[in-house]
Amino acid sequence: MVRILGIDPGSQRTGIGVIDVAADGRCRFVHCEALKLLDAPDFPSRLGLLCEGLERVLDAWQPHQVAIETVFMDKSAMSALKLGHARGAALATVVRRKLVISEYAPRVIKQSLVGRGAADKLQVQHMVRLLLNLAEMKLQADAADALAVALTHAHMSATAIRTGLAVTDLRRRGT
Amino acid sequence: MVRILGIDPGSQRTGIGVIDVAADGRCRFVHCEALKLLDAPDFPSRLGLLCEGLERVLDAWQPHQVAIETVFMDKSAMSALKLGHARGAALATVVRRKLVISEYAPRVIKQSLVGRGAADKLQVQHMVRLLLNLAEMKLQADAADALAVALTHAHMSATAIRTGLAVTDLRRRGT
Repeated sequence: MVRILGIDPGSQRTGIGVIDVAADGRCRFVHCEALKLLDAPDFPSRLGLLCEGLERVLDAWQPHQVAIETVFMDKSAMSALKLGHARGAALATVVRRKLVISEYAPRVIKQSLVGRGAADKLQVQHMVRLLLNLAEMKLQADAADALAVALTHAHMSATAIRTGLAVTDLRRRGT
Repeated sequence: MVRILGIDPGSQRTGIGVIDVAADGRCRFVHCEALKLLDAPDFPSRLGLLCEGLERVLDAWQPHQVAIETVFMDKSAMSALKLGHARGAALATVVRRKLVISEYAPRVIKQSLVGRGAADKLQVQHMVRLLLNLAEMKLQADAADALAVALTHAHMSATAIRTGLAVTDLRRRGT
């Protein structure tokens, strides 16, 4: 069994999702949440909350692998900067635990879950529910996106094992 | 005596400077260095190195206050994103130590040290050497920039005490 932590970083909310992948490739929902960062008194404190929340999840669920979305670069410099702060704080927290991080572009996540790189967010969330048997559960958008990147990593790893290709090669092909 | 840590964050090199400010406002050089991050095997590991280096300095020199440059926004979204990652990792490390962070725009730092918001980098470095008696010392550009933001914070705090204005008001006036 491999436990994967997915992260959808954001400076207002950061989504976190944990899944287990069995030897036969089946994925099981373990945990998800959205860290709410807007309550912090200032921007640096938001990043502090993000790291604290992430460390709490790392301690509680002890994932073996971590997957995170890359940034879709059709953004203004200002939003790229803010997102960069959140992503930098998250990556620094994870890498200091000596965990390997895999990064997936939004297009690759959509392709992997919906079969189409241009799928919309609702379709992705629908597939997250379907693949993890979460029909009844209330699922926040950011938490669902974090589960989506964790599922993508599970799919990519399974394909990598099947085809003998490295996950990095598959990521490159998907983008 | 107040000990100030200045940070000039960057994803390739991060400058760090520590100064002491006496009760009469005189500033004394304590320590400076540039964390070299390009040796890391990948981008997340660079952020890990940044945090480790910063924590080592925080442990060794125990600063009371921290000052950091804001981002000059005439940058592409891609460089803003990279710089944001470094800055986010640095801010998260500092804020988790419950240290207060003051942020200064490049214009304000130049104004405070050289008397002109449009001064060039060499003039700023010259003033850092002059104010801290570092004529003989080899000084890396990033480390000098970190000392510059620490000195700016010292000047702003002294002016704040003299005028009864909060540092945040002074910062606003300077920009």
